[in-house]
Amino acid sequence: MYLVFIRHGQSEWNKKNLFTGWTDVDLSDEGINEAIKAGQLLKKHNFTFDVAYTSVLKRAIRTLYFVLNETDQLWIPVYKSWRLNERHYGALQGLNKAQTAEKYGDEQVHIWRRSYDVLPPLLDENDERQSKFDRRYEGLDSRILPSGENLKVTLERVMPYWEDEIAPALKSGKKVVIAAHGNSLRALAKYLENISDDEIMDLEIPTGVPLIYELDDNFKVLKKYYLED
Amino acid sequence: MYLVFIRHGQSEWNKKNLFTGWTDVDLSDEGINEAIKAGQLLKKHNFTFDVAYTSVLKRAIRTLYFVLNETDQLWIPVYKSWRLNERHYGALQGLNKAQTAEKYGDEQVHIWRRSYDVLPPLLDENDERQSKFDRRYEGLDSRILPSGENLKVTLERVMPYWEDEIAPALKSGKKVVIAAHGNSLRALAKYLENISDDEIMDLEIPTGVPLIYELDDNFKVLKKYYLED
Repeated sequence: MYLVFIRHGQSEWNKKNLFTGWTDVDLSDEGINEAIKAGQLLKKHNFTFDVAYTSVLKRAIRTLYFVLNETDQLWIPVYKSWRLNERHYGALQGLNKAQTAEKYGDEQVHIWRRSYDVLPPLLDENDERQSKFDRRYEGLDSRILPSGENLKVTLERVMPYWEDEIAPALKSGKKVVIAAHGNSLRALAKYLENISDDEIMDLEIPTGVPLIYELDDNFKVLKKYYLED
Repeated sequence: MYLVFIRHGQSEWNKKNLFTGWTDVDLSDEGINEAIKAGQLLKKHNFTFDVAYTSVLKRAIRTLYFVLNETDQLWIPVYKSWRLNERHYGALQGLNKAQTAEKYGDEQVHIWRRSYDVLPPLLDENDERQSKFDRRYEGLDSRILPSGENLKVTLERVMPYWEDEIAPALKSGKKVVIAAHGNSLRALAKYLENISDDEIMDLEIPTGVPLIYELDDNFKVLKKYYLED
């Protein structure tokens, strides 16, 4: 069985060098082109899917749309979950990365970006950026909505979705594509490849390049490769 | 509670004057513009949705995508079902409407297009256009896949989806948008507005114009209007 990851391409805030996290920023034109190219590659190599998963953030949803449009599979079921969202970047969301480094020092910013279990500065409870003010999360128990996450916390909220939705789909023989974010995909890769806490931050999944996992019935990785021209 | 219908805009085969039915023809550029305009209108009038339904045909799915993109609601759940497909046009699918009228006579073609319960010529069992050869229908009992439908048969296969999915969503307080086709929407309109078999074929739902139904708790129509500039 196979499982395909696609990390969304460039967003408007990537371009501006801002911390994004759960901010619902759109793809840039370059990001759209990356998504279309990923779709064309999958089509060229005859990848078909039975079901797709994505986050509730438009840069991932639109990436998936372009991939499904290019591969002529817009009709497959698409499920969207907050559990596949990017890591929540707390009070850093919306700040410029270079300015933040000037203010807090390069080392501190490096720790926030690259440590497995150090949290970023958290959003204040009534910060207008809190997800509880966003209609898309209103059906959820607000106590589970993060004010800032490290990769460890991200992994802990991604895994229930893997366990209850994605893994059962794979087990039942479905071919699965997941369009998501650098850190939600990194969390899944850590689990699948059994990567240590120390090593996971070195894993960089490139944007817009389909990552293919061939798995056995127990989700052991038989083969892993990027689909490139 | 409200319910919004959007009939997809021009497709490549509308442009060429071909019978389309279940053929998975794409939107033309004009069709895309109609969808975007519908989205902009809904945004201007502050329509929000909790859930969306569409068919498994890309001209409806893409129409919905453009509407949700324009209204910044790509994150809502979208459910796709063959039950919302266009009326199946049987062996007429792919034929030119004018040529068909020359061959069978204007009156016969008028009957096929406009009678409530006369079936079009059916596809042969092993015609390559049969839906059983299409991967998107492979999970279904092939005996339910039509070889040609009139509006009566279309309504009979649309209604279970209304009863089991759409009506319960409305009852639970959800705001619903349905992006679909001339005849699947006509079937729902016939039911909602209690239109007779004789009169229903006179109801023409324009493409790309949101049709708003305000309903009471028993789905009685309180108000019906088109959203236009």
